[in-house]
Amino acid sequence: MDLKAYLKEQCIRVDVALDRFLPKETELPHNLHKAMRYSVFAGGKRVRPILMLAACQAVGGDTERAIPAACAMEMIHTYSLIHDDLPAMDDDDFRRGNPTNHKVFGEAIAILAGDALLTEAFKLASDPRLNNDVPPAARLAVINEIAVCAGSHGMVGGQVVDMESEGKPDIDLPIVQYIHTHKTGALIKASVVAGALLGGADETKLAAVKRYGEAAGLAFQIADDILDIEGTTEEIGKDAGSDEARGKATYPAVMGLPAAKAEARTMMDEAMAALEIFGPEADPLRNIAQYIVNRKN
Amino acid sequence: MDLKAYLKEQCIRVDVALDRFLPKETELPHNLHKAMRYSVFAGGKRVRPILMLAACQAVGGDTERAIPAACAMEMIHTYSLIHDDLPAMDDDDFRRGNPTNHKVFGEAIAILAGDALLTEAFKLASDPRLNNDVPPAARLAVINEIAVCAGSHGMVGGQVVDMESEGKPDIDLPIVQYIHTHKTGALIKASVVAGALLGGADETKLAAVKRYGEAAGLAFQIADDILDIEGTTEEIGKDAGSDEARGKATYPAVMGLPAAKAEARTMMDEAMAALEIFGPEADPLRNIAQYIVNRKN
Repeated sequence: MDLKAYLKEQCIRVDVALDRFLPKETELPHNLHKAMRYSVFAGGKRVRPILMLAACQAVGGDTERAIPAACAMEMIHTYSLIHDDLPAMDDDDFRRGNPTNHKVFGEAIAILAGDALLTEAFKLASDPRLNNDVPPAARLAVINEIAVCAGSHGMVGGQVVDMESEGKPDIDLPIVQYIHTHKTGALIKASVVAGALLGGADETKLAAVKRYGEAAGLAFQIADDILDIEGTTEEIGKDAGSDEARGKATYPAVMGLPAAKAEARTMMDEAMAALEIFGPEADPLRNIAQYIVNRKN
Repeated sequence: MDLKAYLKEQCIRVDVALDRFLPKETELPHNLHKAMRYSVFAGGKRVRPILMLAACQAVGGDTERAIPAACAMEMIHTYSLIHDDLPAMDDDDFRRGNPTNHKVFGEAIAILAGDALLTEAFKLASDPRLNNDVPPAARLAVINEIAVCAGSHGMVGGQVVDMESEGKPDIDLPIVQYIHTHKTGALIKASVVAGALLGGADETKLAAVKRYGEAAGLAFQIADDILDIEGTTEEIGKDAGSDEARGKATYPAVMGLPAAKAEARTMMDEAMAALEIFGPEADPLRNIAQYIVNRKN
């Protein structure tokens, strides 16, 4: 399959839906909705929503059913970036080459735009006007999966440990594993599990997709750590080498670059192995796993 | 009925459930869970959860069914207080006589504890291990009601307009109404609507409870504005007169104290009138409406 064309097509599909679902700037409060849209449309690659659509397809589902939850996932990812960039957190002025939300709208609106995007995600996932052909119990399961993976035992937990570990000399592999599986891995796992649930997967398919998500999620973050070292500032849209400069807990930092690269490949192999029960309908998931490890930004 | 005893009993019931549902401090990340619990157990009166239980009772439902959503609502209320108190927002050092979350745990953890509480609320409301006797479609409707009322067209929207109006000379009644119906009113309305949905209310009862919630929510916030002027610092647990000092958009500020008091009474009368279709099973809702307007803190 032509992965580049597939990713572009799905990205546009997600963008069109996000534009339809997000409150308009003409709705009160204008500034809040402007801030929400600013960060959602700041050039994201829509990796999580596309993974959700691909997982839905892999289990034989109609991907249209996964569009609202896919957009909800991107809203949660975006809220996490807005809050991570705040002065009290990572204090970043740029994200994907653009000024961060609080640099444009101020800290208060940035905090509230993040809060509103997180809330909007659950509003969208539970919208009674959408997804009426999906059983309500499956929709509830999707909401729960997303909330568990985004919360204190998932993404937020990972961010806390990441922050607390920064600059500490004694960070070991278990801590880096905790950070990566929680901060990035959890939402990626939730994306594919939600896609499988919305596609009507049975237990076997659901378990396979979950194993794929766990391995691909970890591969994604290790690849990110490697890119921070090997990528140029232009390629990755932020200062290259910033992880090392900050004393961030990363795979290359605790095991060295060659071992980190080997680990990323192992994780990709695990992700591929998890998909063995599927036929060509899982080709998008397979190609995305390879792309995750080989990407340049 | 003995309202004081009722409120105390329900408050304990909610507190016990909150303690059961919230992640323990022994779970990783310890500091995050400590921060979440610190603010949840900082002396809240549990007005919203109790309203949800009372609304469930009013429509003839089993109030046990509303316990998880009631706790979810208190988590959302608590997250909003933590974020409102941040330096970038209201910059408050004390809340209910205790140091605010960011004064104890730092800004980063306070932001993340708020994020985690908001997420935890939706996790709880969608938990597959709870509420299995409530139809999944009703649970989805509850989640949607809560998300709509907490988001950019509800509570967060109200907070944005409140913040943007602070200190401005030309604040008029429509703006104050927008702030109050959104910032405080929306969650109170959502609480009673959720309680009615979980209690299995028909359309007529649901509409009545909704009208009650809208009127009681507005009465609650006007009473708060009045308390800020007439209460002592000891009674209200924060600096008395702080709204005026900040140039906050309040009912007394735009219409004067006597007219604001009359408006609070009108709203309470409307709330009572909405309950006319109910018998004694709505007595808790009736008594709470009176308490809201007459309370001293």
